[in-house]
Amino acid sequence: MSTAEQTEGDDLPWGEVTPDAARRLLVAAVEAFAERGYHATTTRDIAGRAGMSPAALYIHYKTKEELLHRISRIGHDKALRVLRTAADGPGSAAERLADAVRSFVRWHADHHTTARVVQYELDALGDEHRTEIVALRRQSDAAVRDMINDGVRNGEFDVPDVPGTTLAVLSLCIDVARWFNVAGTRTPDEVGALYADLVLRMVGARPQAS
Amino acid sequence: MSTAEQTEGDDLPWGEVTPDAARRLLVAAVEAFAERGYHATTTRDIAGRAGMSPAALYIHYKTKEELLHRISRIGHDKALRVLRTAADGPGSAAERLADAVRSFVRWHADHHTTARVVQYELDALGDEHRTEIVALRRQSDAAVRDMINDGVRNGEFDVPDVPGTTLAVLSLCIDVARWFNVAGTRTPDEVGALYADLVLRMVGARPQAS
Repeated sequence: MSTAEQTEGDDLPWGEVTPDAARRLLVAAVEAFAERGYHATTTRDIAGRAGMSPAALYIHYKTKEELLHRISRIGHDKALRVLRTAADGPGSAAERLADAVRSFVRWHADHHTTARVVQYELDALGDEHRTEIVALRRQSDAAVRDMINDGVRNGEFDVPDVPGTTLAVLSLCIDVARWFNVAGTRTPDEVGALYADLVLRMVGARPQAS
Repeated sequence: MSTAEQTEGDDLPWGEVTPDAARRLLVAAVEAFAERGYHATTTRDIAGRAGMSPAALYIHYKTKEELLHRISRIGHDKALRVLRTAADGPGSAAERLADAVRSFVRWHADHHTTARVVQYELDALGDEHRTEIVALRRQSDAAVRDMINDGVRNGEFDVPDVPGTTLAVLSLCIDVARWFNVAGTRTPDEVGALYADLVLRMVGARPQAS
């Protein structure tokens, strides 16, 4: 699971984390949290997986919660960037929404191990960190809501409940991380294409002249 | 979270589990697994939450995995029954599908703590038990797929990819357990009504004469 994840997407997983020892510890933490859960994982487990001593871990991360926060922050930042790039792109509301869903779904399929940790361990973050992450999630919510509102305003979409539909669209995409299986029959691109079509139906998009 | 769950739905939570000591241990296990994860929970923790000794626990459950299996089995059985009752009911394919989505969503909102444990700890089950649970999930899948196929056959629905749409409909409903919050603005019934409407859009249901 995590091996496949590491070979997809960026050239080096978590390449933005430096120095390399800090990056390797983060990769080890994602794997350990995904396998056993945050509370069942010790900093000793994480250091061991990364081939380091517990003392070496503390040079880079003061607590286990700091590791979870870094993972969650980077994961949410990337998912939000993917969503915003599509939302701010050219095209009709339908084209931008379809593009956003394709990208967001692909991200959750390609990074399903990270996404699961980030989603299921939210309650393990300290209050301050959880507040910060919830604010990022509100921004994802706003990006989708704005596209739907644009489409409603210009007559492309027919949506009786914009906040509820926004919630459902994001939920549908995020849950890909739960069920996606690299050994399954559908590629991330195929799931993205299917979901883009389903979401256009959810917002009552009129068939477009192509 | 779990307190709210215990006051909703059935008169007594897990009332089908007898004797009462076995039932109380199951309730304690759901709470402990939800809070700390399966691997971070010991049988001692579970016995303590239920006000019993570890020795008293072993009278009812030989292992921690047996507790998870009972929770998962009962949870999946109930969710499947809810889905099938609607699927086998009277009415058009659209009416049955809308009813099934409303019921399945309500179940996942009312029992979100149990549903989270059941979904997120699937990998912690032993091979034999996981195979049994996966078979139950295939039956849920078949119930939804059959309704969609019925609607396609009789011209009510327009669905280019029936297996993919089935997967998406179930995923949308199941993920309610992740985000549903009893302190939130929407009741389980309201989420059920919204989702029934969205799912009818996903399958391209023609507006019905009412």
